[in-house]
Amino acid sequence: MVKASQARPAGKAAGTEFVQSLARGLAVIRTFDAENPRQSLSQVARSTGLSRATARRFLLTLVDLGYVDSDESQFWLTPKVLELGYSYLSSMPLTEVAAPHLEKLRSRLGESSSVSILDGTDIVYVARVQVRRIMTVDITIGTRFPAHATSMGKVLLASLSEVDFASYLREAAERVEPGMPGFDEATLRSEIEAARKRGWSMTDQELEPGLRSLAAPIKDASGATVAAINVSTHAMRYTLDQLHDDFVPALLAAASAISEDLATVNR
Amino acid sequence: MVKASQARPAGKAAGTEFVQSLARGLAVIRTFDAENPRQSLSQVARSTGLSRATARRFLLTLVDLGYVDSDESQFWLTPKVLELGYSYLSSMPLTEVAAPHLEKLRSRLGESSSVSILDGTDIVYVARVQVRRIMTVDITIGTRFPAHATSMGKVLLASLSEVDFASYLREAAERVEPGMPGFDEATLRSEIEAARKRGWSMTDQELEPGLRSLAAPIKDASGATVAAINVSTHAMRYTLDQLHDDFVPALLAAASAISEDLATVNR
Repeated sequence: MVKASQARPAGKAAGTEFVQSLARGLAVIRTFDAENPRQSLSQVARSTGLSRATARRFLLTLVDLGYVDSDESQFWLTPKVLELGYSYLSSMPLTEVAAPHLEKLRSRLGESSSVSILDGTDIVYVARVQVRRIMTVDITIGTRFPAHATSMGKVLLASLSEVDFASYLREAAERVEPGMPGFDEATLRSEIEAARKRGWSMTDQELEPGLRSLAAPIKDASGATVAAINVSTHAMRYTLDQLHDDFVPALLAAASAISEDLATVNR
Repeated sequence: MVKASQARPAGKAAGTEFVQSLARGLAVIRTFDAENPRQSLSQVARSTGLSRATARRFLLTLVDLGYVDSDESQFWLTPKVLELGYSYLSSMPLTEVAAPHLEKLRSRLGESSSVSILDGTDIVYVARVQVRRIMTVDITIGTRFPAHATSMGKVLLASLSEVDFASYLREAAERVEPGMPGFDEATLRSEIEAARKRGWSMTDQELEPGLRSLAAPIKDASGATVAAINVSTHAMRYTLDQLHDDFVPALLAAASAISEDLATVNR
């Protein structure tokens, strides 16, 4: 995570135009997550890189505004945080339309399934149903991965024009993250071409050993790809033949059912 | 909505401690909603009460931080905003645990179903599955209603101690909102008492003509109520007898399944 103390002007709001207090305040909100639902002032200061005095001002401001609550020693987010765009974005027709189909796919295949969209060089999860296992993948709504490393990313990239794909490649090359596989343009191009031809994509243990994921495009009424749906499984549970014979048809059926429902809703 | 220009220090972060830029920036994010998904600079300035120059600085800062995108004339939120609300939701296992049970209830009864928690004098929706009809109720994750006016609110209020309930009553009396039914303490007390005794609650067209909602408590391992689940329907679709005979048992079964799963997750 970028430390709030390092948040710096870049791009459009250069120099004095950049409101650093806003950047810092949002970084304070984001320090709260499933691992750190309640934090002391010191913890927040440490994870944002702010001084204790500064972190305290931001936390107390968030308390005044109703986004954070606290007792004597700990701070935590309140449900008001949901009003920051979450209510709006979570009501995107896509998310709502996809939910029952994801549930159906989970009951049928017994595996986790998600919907994501392309945002810059990342895919972002906007809907997900998860199977509980001892070892689960820690992915939630809002989780991002570099598009090139994922099956959903490949079907989403397959929908870009050559111009958009070229600018994607430039940006992605600058943004290879530690811990994430890098990419080779020729390999990526051939994988994307394959995804475009057969209408689905698979990553076989590229992101993580054992993790296999199949993805298919979700389209709008005009046939343009607007999102991707995937189902993921472990290499130990199913053979590649089983994935081809059982998973691919189920996934394609779900993708086309969501596309159809989406066309109805938007009409 | 409180205008950002009127956001003022109150409570803990008094005077110079209050970070006004953070308050204004959050208000800018909140001007985007389902009715105003794309806005011009003038619109944002108007609805926040900020000058155009100030609104522009905040918008461009949000663009730099990746929360807002824009073309030449319009601004809109990006999916990165989900990471703000999700920090909160991901710290609650409840949402994830409830999802499959809500889906099951929807398939079984063919009606919308939700989970909410108590926040101050409001209930806040944290999970929801919706049935698409021509007339649907516009409720999403993060939607709030005064607790006293809803079936979920009544089962949640039933879990409060007498001291907490007394302070709830004081606050609620000050916050009766236009368009929402007011309340009479004696009636509310007897409804809450009934909910406590039979383990569920019903509102019959109090919030809106035709709208009926049944709710039951979701409990943690210690037996304390932590949330409520509901199923809502229209008075024209089912008789009260049908609700008692079919809906109540299904709802109670879902509530107890979620409570059990929650106890497993938290153990």
